[in-house]
Amino acid sequence: MKAEIISIGDELLIGQVINSNQAYIAEKLNSVGIFGDKMTTVGDDEGEIFSAFQKAYASHDVITVTGGLGPTHDDITRSVVCKFFQTDSIINEEALENVKRVFTRLKSVPRKINEDQALVPRGCVVIQNRLGTAPGYFFERDKKYFIVMPGVPYEMKAMMDDFVLPFFMKQTTGLVIRHRTLKTTGIAESFLAEHIGDVHQLFSPDSGLTLAFLPSSLGVRLRITAKAKSADEAEKKIQDVETKLRGKVEKFIYAAGEEELESTVGSLLKDRRLRIALAESCTGGLIANRITDISGSSEYFERGIITYSNESKIDELGVPSELIGSHGAVSREVAEAMALGIRTVSGADIGISTTGIAGPTGGSQEKPVGLVWIGYSDNDETIALQFNFGGGRRIIKERAAQAALELLRRKILKIPG
Amino acid sequence: MKAEIISIGDELLIGQVINSNQAYIAEKLNSVGIFGDKMTTVGDDEGEIFSAFQKAYASHDVITVTGGLGPTHDDITRSVVCKFFQTDSIINEEALENVKRVFTRLKSVPRKINEDQALVPRGCVVIQNRLGTAPGYFFERDKKYFIVMPGVPYEMKAMMDDFVLPFFMKQTTGLVIRHRTLKTTGIAESFLAEHIGDVHQLFSPDSGLTLAFLPSSLGVRLRITAKAKSADEAEKKIQDVETKLRGKVEKFIYAAGEEELESTVGSLLKDRRLRIALAESCTGGLIANRITDISGSSEYFERGIITYSNESKIDELGVPSELIGSHGAVSREVAEAMALGIRTVSGADIGISTTGIAGPTGGSQEKPVGLVWIGYSDNDETIALQFNFGGGRRIIKERAAQAALELLRRKILKIPG
Repeated sequence: MKAEIISIGDELLIGQVINSNQAYIAEKLNSVGIFGDKMTTVGDDEGEIFSAFQKAYASHDVITVTGGLGPTHDDITRSVVCKFFQTDSIINEEALENVKRVFTRLKSVPRKINEDQALVPRGCVVIQNRLGTAPGYFFERDKKYFIVMPGVPYEMKAMMDDFVLPFFMKQTTGLVIRHRTLKTTGIAESFLAEHIGDVHQLFSPDSGLTLAFLPSSLGVRLRITAKAKSADEAEKKIQDVETKLRGKVEKFIYAAGEEELESTVGSLLKDRRLRIALAESCTGGLIANRITDISGSSEYFERGIITYSNESKIDELGVPSELIGSHGAVSREVAEAMALGIRTVSGADIGISTTGIAGPTGGSQEKPVGLVWIGYSDNDETIALQFNFGGGRRIIKERAAQAALELLRRKILKIPG
Repeated sequence: MKAEIISIGDELLIGQVINSNQAYIAEKLNSVGIFGDKMTTVGDDEGEIFSAFQKAYASHDVITVTGGLGPTHDDITRSVVCKFFQTDSIINEEALENVKRVFTRLKSVPRKINEDQALVPRGCVVIQNRLGTAPGYFFERDKKYFIVMPGVPYEMKAMMDDFVLPFFMKQTTGLVIRHRTLKTTGIAESFLAEHIGDVHQLFSPDSGLTLAFLPSSLGVRLRITAKAKSADEAEKKIQDVETKLRGKVEKFIYAAGEEELESTVGSLLKDRRLRIALAESCTGGLIANRITDISGSSEYFERGIITYSNESKIDELGVPSELIGSHGAVSREVAEAMALGIRTVSGADIGISTTGIAGPTGGSQEKPVGLVWIGYSDNDETIALQFNFGGGRRIIKERAAQAALELLRRKILKIPG
């Protein structure tokens, strides 16, 4: 089956918003064997939207539409959908209940324009919105599927995951495509490629397998793709390549799939009943924020202290002021004292610290922007490692947080540096 | 003039890459009075590309094309462009020199496939590529402009900035378009719309002005767009609408343009020489992370403590354990004690605290997931406000952090609740 992905919204056409919905929908449809072969974006204009619907419907089996379902005057997608399917709008009771529930939670009462969010085209299957007020619409007509969802990314994603994908998973036959991504960090793309060597030692060119290197500022992802007649066969092919890859670069791989490093580390800590505490300077709370993005992190995250001032390093962590005076706040000695200090103060099993120069100001010849020391302390040792990160302020913070979590992972697993 | 923005590449269609080129091109064209009214993405397929060219050419004055100009077998854009304009390819000497220069810099020698990058459609104006090897093509035919550029974002951007925009800047005489975005938070889209009232009280339907509501999980942006004969006139129209809008909803507007709330708050603190400290529970470091994303934040951010455990609330902030026992950690009383505690411990002027249930587990009938108390303490008062946020764990954290920063903004500006 072939899909066209239609996005609606003037904010996209003027370039105010980068359209990330397209890629999400394409990737997800792809995972159930539906190939997105066209993407179209039009504004909040009846004629343009109608014409886009007509062209897509004439040439594709699956059409997804996002955007223009909000409550205000410029949201016209519902009325164009009704016109396109020559139907009218009716109130969907479940969607109306949902609107009321949302407003009750906000300790407020929906007005008419909010209640109108529960209007849906007569004859569609309604996709309920568990994260917002506008429901989605699902049409199956002439052996074609026409799916309308809100443009708000997390609302759309929930509908894709809860409704659209499970539906197509049942429908699709023929060739299946499977992907598996192995996430690495702490190694550059070219070194990783060198460790892996010739990919055609891993699989033959006509095996239906491919391997892609996807670098980002936080690490390189390795994506294995397999095409096969069945999901089982594709999975088996992927498993085979994964095993070979792990034989070569296992220690750099912290996760498979979409798992984040904070989740990997969280599971390791939980399994071993270890508790950690953080003393962050240059990362400014980013490590704690990532760790606490994981549900259940209160089991292993004891506390974090963001010691931005020298006084707070001294007061909260017991870093000797002489140490800061003689070595500077950005130094091996202070990083170690911070890691040891937070472990001692909190009573946690492991202390992690960061101190560095995130920039763009504050650098010097000797201690340039991007210099970061990351400290680690447990019952057996207290150490600090030096890093020199490139990028702007946010990228440096992100890279330092990633390196700190990776250091934690390797220490827990006793992977030699 | 109306533009269609065409993107070519299988990597876009499978959702591997988020298409940021579209938004960049749209925004830049917009700034010289060319309105992108359609965006289309097709794969590396001759028929699809040709058909997209035909449709775009039939209905638009300006067509931009990016992608498919690389050296490998799947890059077919040049040959389709030649077919479309019924011409052939010739070597462009300047582009060939550039290819050789790039390879010299890489201490390497170009192969045939690299030298072929210097092939261009006969009859086009060549846009040289100062950051890569593939040149762009510029056609002016039938009063239409057809522009082909590489898909590599920074190469495309350099061509837009160096060649395309200066060209159109000279050409466009007619209407110019200007936008201004006002960012609000802490008020739902429908209430904001109600406060603003009938938009045609702000401007008449034929004034060339429009107002769009752009909601997200962190607030609603109001985008004013003006079309006018000159930039000055457009700016004046926008200023007029902005003044009227501010008259109605000033207190909800925290920034204009792309400024983030942490930046607004940072400037306010800096101007008033106030220092803050944070005691975060459910936001887990996110507020500190946002504050420290701003360069120079060390001037006003004293420290932050992430008190995830009850012990840390007691140890670090001096929250009485009886208070946690009788009211629970998620309560007005504890939020207030945390805000007061962090202010006292740190010696900062203002203390901010968060305590809540980010979920997905840990909620109860009485204290459901999404319940968050935000505390504020200064020399005059210590208070806490209750919020009930929807969404998953991360969205709840984000909304709580946004609400905390907004509370801080309103307190500094003495805006009544």
